[in-house]
Amino acid sequence: MASKAIAIIAGVGAGTGAAVARKFAASYPVVLIARNPDNYESLAREINSNGGKALGISADVANAKSIKAATEAIKKEFGDDVTAAAAIFNASGSFVRKPFLELTEDEFMAGLEVSGRGAFNFSSAFLPLLLKTVHSNPKYPPALIFTGATASVKANAMMSSFATGKFALRALSSSLAKEFGPQGVHVSHAIIDGVIDIPRTKDWMKDAPPDAKISADAIADSYWYLHTQPRSAWIWEVDIRPYVEKW
Amino acid sequence: MASKAIAIIAGVGAGTGAAVARKFAASYPVVLIARNPDNYESLAREINSNGGKALGISADVANAKSIKAATEAIKKEFGDDVTAAAAIFNASGSFVRKPFLELTEDEFMAGLEVSGRGAFNFSSAFLPLLLKTVHSNPKYPPALIFTGATASVKANAMMSSFATGKFALRALSSSLAKEFGPQGVHVSHAIIDGVIDIPRTKDWMKDAPPDAKISADAIADSYWYLHTQPRSAWIWEVDIRPYVEKW
Amino acid sequence: MASKAIAIIAGVGAGTGAAVARKFAASYPVVLIARNPDNYESLAREINSNGGKALGISADVANAKSIKAATEAIKKEFGDDVTAAAAIFNASGSFVRKPFLELTEDEFMAGLEVSGRGAFNFSSAFLPLLLKTVHSNPKYPPALIFTGATASVKANAMMSSFATGKFALRALSSSLAKEFGPQGVHVSHAIIDGVIDIPRTKDWMKDAPPDAKISADAIADSYWYLHTQPRSAWIWEVDIRPYVEKW
Amino acid sequence: MASKAIAIIAGVGAGTGAAVARKFAASYPVVLIARNPDNYESLAREINSNGGKALGISADVANAKSIKAATEAIKKEFGDDVTAAAAIFNASGSFVRKPFLELTEDEFMAGLEVSGRGAFNFSSAFLPLLLKTVHSNPKYPPALIFTGATASVKANAMMSSFATGKFALRALSSSLAKEFGPQGVHVSHAIIDGVIDIPRTKDWMKDAPPDAKISADAIADSYWYLHTQPRSAWIWEVDIRPYVEKW
Repeated sequence: MASKAIAIIAGVGAGTGAAVARKFAASYPVVLIARNPDNYESLAREINSNGGKALGISADVANAKSIKAATEAIKKEFGDDVTAAAAIFNASGSFVRKPFLELTEDEFMAGLEVSGRGAFNFSSAFLPLLLKTVHSNPKYPPALIFTGATASVKANAMMSSFATGKFALRALSSSLAKEFGPQGVHVSHAIIDGVIDIPRTKDWMKDAPPDAKISADAIADSYWYLHTQPRSAWIWEVDIRPYVEKW
Repeated sequence: MASKAIAIIAGVGAGTGAAVARKFAASYPVVLIARNPDNYESLAREINSNGGKALGISADVANAKSIKAATEAIKKEFGDDVTAAAAIFNASGSFVRKPFLELTEDEFMAGLEVSGRGAFNFSSAFLPLLLKTVHSNPKYPPALIFTGATASVKANAMMSSFATGKFALRALSSSLAKEFGPQGVHVSHAIIDGVIDIPRTKDWMKDAPPDAKISADAIADSYWYLHTQPRSAWIWEVDIRPYVEKW
Repeated sequence: MASKAIAIIAGVGAGTGAAVARKFAASYPVVLIARNPDNYESLAREINSNGGKALGISADVANAKSIKAATEAIKKEFGDDVTAAAAIFNASGSFVRKPFLELTEDEFMAGLEVSGRGAFNFSSAFLPLLLKTVHSNPKYPPALIFTGATASVKANAMMSSFATGKFALRALSSSLAKEFGPQGVHVSHAIIDGVIDIPRTKDWMKDAPPDAKISADAIADSYWYLHTQPRSAWIWEVDIRPYVEKW
Repeated sequence: MASKAIAIIAGVGAGTGAAVARKFAASYPVVLIARNPDNYESLAREINSNGGKALGISADVANAKSIKAATEAIKKEFGDDVTAAAAIFNASGSFVRKPFLELTEDEFMAGLEVSGRGAFNFSSAFLPLLLKTVHSNPKYPPALIFTGATASVKANAMMSSFATGKFALRALSSSLAKEFGPQGVHVSHAIIDGVIDIPRTKDWMKDAPPDAKISADAIADSYWYLHTQPRSAWIWEVDIRPYVEKW
């Protein structure tokens, strides 16, 4: 049981979450949170076999009990005095695009359940671990980073579920930045504007140049950059898009 | 039982909601929705005794069944072929201001329950009545108006519950404007930035000029103005503040 | 020579400016400012022959001497104690769309000359006349309204001349609203987002519904509405677009 | 005469400009542009004596001839085939804060002369050098970075000169990003929101923690980070503020 600061990533899948986990795993033990163990098991093996340390936890951020259990599992593994160097909220509601009057209440609320309730549960659970790091003379200030999207600032027709969630997440990030920044926690928000280059999007944009999709590793680099900034010059928000993106 | 178009106002209290109801009651039968009948009973009496027509309904916008029952009550009163000239969503989550780590999950979600789930239920229930009006050659295009606040665009420290709700509501309004505008429904969003002059705020800002608080009647005039705009020149968003407001 | 408050409109052409002039001419003597007398002469005749009062002045807002001469002409016509009920800045730089590296310095600066320097000259000259009205117990508070465009908030590729001007104009409007609002002058900004229905755009959007272009009269109605708002509930910014506009 | 890519920094003074110059001088010959040679002479000496290469040029960005002469001086020093790895526009209009009606036309236009005309001249002159780099297989994509401020997005009372300039600069940066991004040049905009820690601000905020002012070196690190991003994941805008800043 070590007291070394860890990094916690929620929403680990094929793209951004996995890339972020690999990046932070080079410096910290990482906790990988996803609902479905399929999403983190091979990644955890990969990190553990490459000399890093990864703990996969199956949890639903939208369920407070589930996040509480995740916190217990983290303490069991890393000690009650565990601290966090970084907590990255990369979970996202499912992407329902259909006429508003065909949306069920549950479909509409799916975005807010993850990006509202889930982000609350995540922040409530792990801000205390980030605050503990502030006073431990860390190499870098502790960071709480939220992944947004174009829908964080633009709500298109038939996208109300996704956009209400992402707008709410941006509000939460801004409010937390103002409350916890002065306490030494760097809270940020990244607007990812474009298609991420992952297996699922392999066949999209086939006529575009090879780097017309966003590299998940490049997003991870940006998150790492945010983490390493000194507190005298923190960035709250970045917008990340490939060079060819129309906006 | 008349087929005349009605106006539906959710969130009827001492201020904006009541003023909006009075304004629209001069032209339409009005439905007054509030959780607590205390909030609409005297207003309904006042409108009904002044030659208008008001139906008060106790309902919780965040509860789909409750809004479904409200819709049934409306149809019972105004006929199955009832149409709506205007639907105004003025409900608001309670205003909790405290350190984030002291917020319970329910306190945090209070904003999203009303401004997210509630606005979804309200829009789902009453957009069909607004759409019916489009094809009935109405004097003014049907209007769906949402009441926002400074917190719709600015998320201050310790205000995450209110701001996440208001950001989400603004996203919903924008998405609906883009989907239903082309179908003939005027969807708008009003950012009310300042203190509204109601009994509860009587003792606030005592050293300021008498018109330093926003007149609820003036807000109602703006909502009526939005309703009467021709569809070739619709305003989506207005920001309303008193002349002395700092911003 | 009367001391009655006047309305001053700069940028009178076939569309918004003329419609605004007609609207305000129903209540006030109007001053019509354009560089080219062709742009106001028939309009002035029309207003004067319909029982209104219009004074056309050839002036270039971007030229301080020219605006000074306009002010002298106004005082000669309406008296040294003339006051203004409204001043509407509707002038606009020419719309150059070409690759940035092909822009000459003058082409680039054209937007800023009108929307920056011109708006400064206009505001400097006529704010004193608006301030005089504040204390004369006017029916409506004096209004200073600026016409913006989509380019006020979105700077597209190859549109830097127009967008820099419109962004700057929006900044000016916001700064003036904060300084002169508390002094009793209502400063506003209108983002006109869409094609205005004027002779020049007659052949545009031929497959769209007849009201898919913005009615200039409807814009004028909105400006009049802004002027008539009580100061306890002023709108700073409106966005005006036709119901079918994509945004 | 080398064909090595250079970095050009306009607006070299005690703070951000000098820090950026030092940072980029570790990798590139740097050109230091300021109106007053006092602002770059000791910095150029410092860089040249530390193993770097710096060329100071006295030029006024708002004067096209002056920027043309600077371009000639650059070509004379680095060859006609010189290319640019980075061009950083850090010049800023003087900061006039006074009642609007006391502003002279020149005082008002000071912001737009630098941030509008000056940024145009700078971009027109050096984008061709940046474009040449795109095809030379550079280690990092060429970058054009503009320094903004809180006034880039918020126009306060009595700040119209500064804010109109900064709003315009942001519009230019956005328009150029959309035009030149697809051509391989990374155009960015930095909103610096806070007091920069330089000799001139030494006595400001004396009761605040030592890192409550922004470190110019940290800004320079962020600019360098922007330069090194791969083009599949470019950031257009960052907002940089110290952890204690209210916003």
